[in-house]
Parts: sequence; C-alpha cells; structure tokens
Amino acid sequence: MTPQSTRRTRERLVEVARELFHQQGYGATGLAQILRTAEVNSGSLYHFFRGKHELLLAVLEHYKELLWPAVLEPAWRGVDDPIERIWALLDAYRGALLESEFQSSCPIGSLALELKDLHPEAHALIAENFEGWRQAVRGCLEDARARFPAGLERDKLATFVLTTMEGGVMQSRSYRSIGPFDDSVAMLRDYFGRILDSEPTPPKKARKHP
Amino acid sequence: MTPQSTRRTRERLVEVARELFHQQGYGATGLAQILRTAEVNSGSLYHFFRGKHELLLAVLEHYKELLWPAVLEPAWRGVDDPIERIWALLDAYRGALLESEFQSSCPIGSLALELKDLHPEAHALIAENFEGWRQAVRGCLEDARARFPAGLERDKLATFVLTTMEGGVMQSRSYRSIGPFDDSVAMLRDYFGRILDSEPTPPKKARKHP
Repeated sequence: MTPQSTRRTRERLVEVARELFHQQGYGATGLAQILRTAEVNSGSLYHFFRGKHELLLAVLEHYKELLWPAVLEPAWRGVDDPIERIWALLDAYRGALLESEFQSSCPIGSLALELKDLHPEAHALIAENFEGWRQAVRGCLEDARARFPAGLERDKLATFVLTTMEGGVMQSRSYRSIGPFDDSVAMLRDYFGRILDSEPTPPKKARKHP
Repeated sequence: MTPQSTRRTRERLVEVARELFHQQGYGATGLAQILRTAEVNSGSLYHFFRGKHELLLAVLEHYKELLWPAVLEPAWRGVDDPIERIWALLDAYRGALLESEFQSSCPIGSLALELKDLHPEAHALIAENFEGWRQAVRGCLEDARARFPAGLERDKLATFVLTTMEGGVMQSRSYRSIGPFDDSVAMLRDYFGRILDSEPTPPKKARKHP
C-alpha cells in the first residue's frame, strides 16, 4: 500500500466505525461488521488498531476535529451576535431532531451513557469532546460579557447550556415531539433573560482583570 | 408449573433483563445471556415473550412501577417541603453518581438514546417513564404554587428539572467528577431563586380555575 492509500484505509475504518457506533451503539457493533462495511480485511485493521476499543478512541479523537467544521461553523454561519450564537447552536440540534423525525441524537452523549467504566480512556475523550463544545459556549458568554452582570458564573452557565441540549434531545427522541426540547430551551432563554435583566453589578476592579 | 412459580419465572426474566440492559445496553445483551443468568430455558421465555423486544417492553412497564418505591419514596422520606423535594430528588442521583464512582446513570435516559426508531412502542414507554418523573416534579411545583408567580409555566419547568438531571448525570459520568452535575443543579437553583424572587403576579381570576 502507498502511504496515501494506507491513510485512506485508516480514515475509512474510523468513518465506518463512527457511523455504526452512532447508529447501533458501541456494544452492538462487531468488528466483523465494521470490516465488511469498510471493505477492509482484518489484517489491515490490526495494522492500525489493536481492536475495537482502539478504534473507538480514534473515533472520539475524530469527533473533536469535527466540532468546528460539522457543528459550530454551520450553526454560526451568518450569526455574529455571541448570545444569538448560543441559540443558533441549540437550534441546529432542533433542526436535526425535526429532519430525522426524532432519530438524531448527540453521538457523544449517547456514548457517555453507553460506555461503562471499563473504558476510562474513552470517557476522558468524551469529556474532551464535551469540553470543546462547552468552551465554545463559554467563549460566546465571554464575548457578551459587557451585557451580563460582572459576577456571572460563565463556566457553570456554559455547562448548563450543554445540559439543556443533551437533556432536551434525549426527551424529544422518546416523546417523538419537539416539545420537550423546545420547553427546555424556552426555560433556558427565560433564565438568560432574567440574568440579563438583573441590575448590572459594578465591575469588580482588580479582581476581574488582575 | 404452578401459577405462582410461573409468575416468579416471568418476574425473574424481567428482573435479569432489566439489570443486563442497564449494565450493557439493550443491543449488546443477547437472549442467551438472559436465559443463562435467569436460569430459565428458552421454552419458558417464549411462553411469556415473543422475543427480546417484548421483554424490553415488560422491563419498561416495570420501571414505571418502580418510580415510587425505588426513586421517589427513598428521595422524599422525611422531606415535606415541595420545593425541597425537587432538590432531594436531584440529590438522590448525585448520591448514586458518587456511590458508584460515576458509573450510575438513569436507565430510562440510556435507553432513550440507545434505542432507534425501530422501537416505537419502547419509545412510547420510555416517554411514559419520563412523564411519571416529570409529573412528580410538576406536583411539587403545584403544591408550592403560592410561592411562585401566578404565570409560572409548571409543565415546562418540570421538563427542565428532568433535563437538568439527565444532562448533568451524562456529563458527570464522563468527567468522572460531580462538577458538571453540581454546576447544572446550581444554575437550576439560581433560576428557581430568580423566579421565586420575582414580583408575584396577581392571581388570574377565572382563567386559572375554570
């Protein structure tokens, strides 16, 4: 194999595994199905990965790379206001729920619930994926800091935005209705409104920008 | 078999399936393992269930029965204040995360993300389980209605409490830290505080109690 075709084989394995883990779950996906779907023989697979677990780690690394091009960039195209970007990000998940007739889900969230403690490295990579998403939202809150009270707990609020997305998607899947997702986002928006309306705390001088 | 031993066989199958689906996921659990663990032969299983899917439906029915004795009653023992009951319910999930070293999860939430649209009946039963939990929280909000503004959207807020629990549990599992769960609950508490502090709306006369 040329280096290029080698790279392509690895990429194909990761892509097929990503798709199958998301569609069926990690536990329900066998290596044989991955090989068959990717049209790769087991020798090639073991050249790159010691087994399904290492393939999972590669998939989770790949998801980190996808955050900007597959999630943030499409959601934020044409949206400049930092707070509107938060709603646009949530709206992208809403659109995916509707378009898929409530089959879509966050692949990271699904793996977070499926994988047990036998997979500490995978959980660490899942947390890194959550962290990328959370930091993107935190950046929006940072960019909009002049509109918030000075004492805003940006880290916690960014976590809460991710919590809202994940919990809303989960419920809407089973209710087969956008209602729970929309209701969760409506409550989050109401909360944001109350924070934004609260009297701005005078900026804390030395403490905020030491 | 006597009627009593028949019932016990069915109960054992449901209990073993519930445990294995929760530990391993639905897709990764085979009927053979269920039979082996329950020490039941396949003839007895097919006497009760046409297959794994029907067993899943029985498991989800059983979870509905468990809401009070296994979730609400232990969380609310000795807690009479309706708003404190909401925090006590969330605190029960916090305790389970800590005790299990971040392995615990909500079995209903896990199935909501794992099962695909091949299982519409299962999703309907998952939604019924969510609904029981949500209605319990809604009941607390109803009991505390005198302390809230009259226009409080109790249905949406109850959904948001469930969203907070599910999203918080999901993240804490992967971060291997109670931080994301605690931060999410802290934001929810702050939101409740802001609602409770807001000026009480004058009661709407005929509209609230037609």
